Formats: sequence, structure tokens, C-alpha cells
Amino acid sequence: MKNTVLKDGERIDQLFSSDVQIIQNKDVFSYSIDSVLLSRFPKIPSKGLIVDLCSGNGAVGLFVSTKTKAPIVEIELQPRLADMAERSIQLNGLEEQVSMICDDLKNLLAHVPRSGVDLMLCNPPYFKSSKTSKKNLSEHYLLARHEITTNLDDICQVAKHALKSNGRLAMVHRPDRFLEILDVLRLHGLAPKRIQFVYPKQSKEANMLLIEAIKDGSIEGLHIMPPLVVHKENGEYTDNIFEIYFGKQGTNIPGASND
Amino acid sequence: MKNTVLKDGERIDQLFSSDVQIIQNKDVFSYSIDSVLLSRFPKIPSKGLIVDLCSGNGAVGLFVSTKTKAPIVEIELQPRLADMAERSIQLNGLEEQVSMICDDLKNLLAHVPRSGVDLMLCNPPYFKSSKTSKKNLSEHYLLARHEITTNLDDICQVAKHALKSNGRLAMVHRPDRFLEILDVLRLHGLAPKRIQFVYPKQSKEANMLLIEAIKDGSIEGLHIMPPLVVHKENGEYTDNIFEIYFGKQGTNIPGASND
Repeated sequence: MKNTVLKDGERIDQLFSSDVQIIQNKDVFSYSIDSVLLSRFPKIPSKGLIVDLCSGNGAVGLFVSTKTKAPIVEIELQPRLADMAERSIQLNGLEEQVSMICDDLKNLLAHVPRSGVDLMLCNPPYFKSSKTSKKNLSEHYLLARHEITTNLDDICQVAKHALKSNGRLAMVHRPDRFLEILDVLRLHGLAPKRIQFVYPKQSKEANMLLIEAIKDGSIEGLHIMPPLVVHKENGEYTDNIFEIYFGKQGTNIPGASND
Repeated sequence: MKNTVLKDGERIDQLFSSDVQIIQNKDVFSYSIDSVLLSRFPKIPSKGLIVDLCSGNGAVGLFVSTKTKAPIVEIELQPRLADMAERSIQLNGLEEQVSMICDDLKNLLAHVPRSGVDLMLCNPPYFKSSKTSKKNLSEHYLLARHEITTNLDDICQVAKHALKSNGRLAMVHRPDRFLEILDVLRLHGLAPKRIQFVYPKQSKEANMLLIEAIKDGSIEGLHIMPPLVVHKENGEYTDNIFEIYFGKQGTNIPGASND
């Protein structure tokens, strides 16, 4: 391990299935299962250009880096989070492949060529901004979770301009906003192609969804991927999730194209 | 059992979990798992008016009759299928509760009051009509499976006019037409509220979906119900499906409101 400087309150977490180490700070920002599942959902191109929007402390791009030689650009508005990501990139010796840009995602085209991106990933703020939503959260979590500095429309608009024709946007989000997600994607010429619902238990309603849309794709041919169930009824991780976190050679994760 | 006249090629099938007996003819029309799951998906009102569109040999309405005292109107265009349904109604002694109308569903308002229906169920033709689709099928199956005499737009239009405000349309369909289903529902003022995906096995993509929409409902508050998996990996029915077919007192079927 390189001699990485950790700041107050930070720790290094490891996703054991990938050997990637991520600097976290629970008071500022920590990645969660959403980022892990997003990074496994789309087929990762072996070359080309990959962009991770709303990248937070950089977890999604760092996980993806283990599956491709393609350059990965991460963009995050909050300097405190981008700084953690920058140091995680160094910690993993990935400076040649992964770059972190601290900027508003609306400015993405100042950093990557128009119609030049093969795959975009995004773990966006899930919740609409409202006065009541602003209580009891640090500013860092507030901006990461609520649509204050960006929203679905901004994200799909920048994806439309940055993606190549037939390039893909993969996003994780919440089922209660599913209809709106479909509408906004299509408004920007992004055709939903693969959707996977994530259920906390086999007997529970979905509380997360993964969706992949293709720029300029036809409206035909939607696939609802196998259900991804997080916990057994007794509360333990299911075998699928256990493998995603801790790794198991040669085993398929249902619905994950790249396994 | 009443002295029911079976015609050539017909047999009587029983859904053991409900004691309902249905006249089937595999050369003409037989209900399948789609109808069984549809009949269990929506909350069945205890009173009011229930309509089953595209009712075929009447299976959905007959299954639903075991859970309510509400009158049930079934409508089916094909006389041969409506005749089977009529005799199944008699076979089960349900002439007082269930009525079969042999007519085009576009004429539904000649038979039920406008804005007078509490719940509509529909197992519609799944496939778009095309020249190639018309091969290798009897006319009965052709009309039941392909959008030749009706289509999604006709169904949602008649639902819009026949349902009460806040009345519900429950439909079974195929995931590859999911986006179109959502669009057509909303075009006719029917807000999707509950969706359940049906997977042939835990590791397979969904091949069926159940969807419930509310007339004049708000766009907020979509629920993705627990996954319904039909077969175990070894090919046997899952416990959920076994119970639906063969019954088990006091056991919940995930996503079925009425259990």
C-alpha cells in the first residue's frame, strides 16, 4: 500500500471481491450497496471512454476499473468528496486509468469530447428537493441524496450530449420514481433496454432498481433481468450478494452482464 | 356436479386451490398460469361491479368469483369460447353472480353503466398483429394471442370510460411491451400503481408482468411488488406457485393483495 494520508474520521474500506480500497468517512460520505451493484450491472467495455457521474468518493469508477483497461473519468461537484476519491485513486495506483474532475456535471463536455463516451454510470441523488428533506443531514449527504445541485433531467441531458450513438447510460435509482425515470430518459433519446429490480428480501417490494438505456436505441426489446435479492429471510446476505461483496470465482451473478 | 354437456375435445379442469371447475379444449382455448396469477393479483372488492375483458373460456372471472359476492361480467368476442364459459358458469352454479356477454369489448358500455365498474381484469392478446404471426395457429388461438380484433389502446380506452373514478384495471402482459403498456395506460388517465414481475426461474429474466392502474390516480407512489418465481432451478413449482394451484390455508402469496 502506498503511503496515503488519511484525514480525520477517514478509514480505508475494501471490497474483497475486487481488491479495490476506498477511503471513506461516515460523517462525510460512504459508498453503499447501490454503488457496488451499479458497478456490476452494465457490460463494461474493454476500451473506449467510461464516465462516472455523481461519483462521490469514487467507488463506482474504482470498482469498474478492475474489469477494463478503458480510461475512466469521474466527476463530482463536492471538493471534499472529490479529494477522497483522488486519494483513493492514488492508493490503488490507478492514476493512469482513472481521473477525478471536481466540477458540476453540466460542464462535463469541457472535459470529455461530445458524443465521445461509450458508457456512463450514475448513482444520482434519489430524492426530490424539499424543505423538509433538508433536516438532519450534513451538507455532504444532503447534496448526495437530494436533487439540490443536479437532477434526473440534468443527468439525462448531459448523457445525451456526451454519449456516442449506441453508447449506454447505467443508473441506480428508486422504484417510486420509476415512471419519471423512464419518461426523462426517453425525453432525451435514451431508450431503456435492461432493468433489474433489487428486493431487500424475496417477500418484500423492490427498494432499488438498476436501469441501462441506449442513446438512439429503438424502443423495442426491453429486458427485465433476474430479480436480485439482498437478504435471506433470516437477514443474512443471499449467496448472490455474498459473492458480489466477497467474491467467488466462476459464479454468475444473475443479471450482471460482465460476469 | 351438474349434468353439464361437454362437446367434442372438451375436458373439465379444476383449480384445486379454489374448487372452481373450468371447461377447456386444448384445440380451441385453455387458460394458463397467466389467468391464474391475474385473478390473484388485484385486491378484489367485496361489492360493486367487476368486469373481465378478453375473458376467453371465463377462467379469470370464475376464479375471482370465489373471493367476492360482487357481480362479475365477462366479455368475450369469440362465440365458441363464450359458449364454453357459459357452460362453466352453469357447471359451478354461478349463474346468479357471473354473466357472460359475447360481444366486442368496444361495446362494453352497452352492457354496464359508464363510470360504474369498480375493478376490471384483462388477460389480453400479447402480440402485435403481423403477417408472420398468423401461421400455425387455429383461429381461436390466433385471436386470443394476437392483436387482431382488439389491442392495448382499445382496452385502456374502454377501461377509462367504464371504470369509476379510482376504479382499477388489472392486466397481465409481457415485459417486452412494458414501456408501451405504461404509455397507453397513462394516455387514458390510468395511473400505474402496482407492478409484479413474474420470473420463470430465479436466475431468468421476467417473462410476464402483472400491472394495476387506477383511473384518475396520481402519478406518485408506484410499488414494485415482490418477485414471483414460477419454478425452482430443478423445474418443480416454487412453494408460492404450488400454493396458488393447490392451495394452502393461511399462507401468503407475495404481492397478492387478497391473500
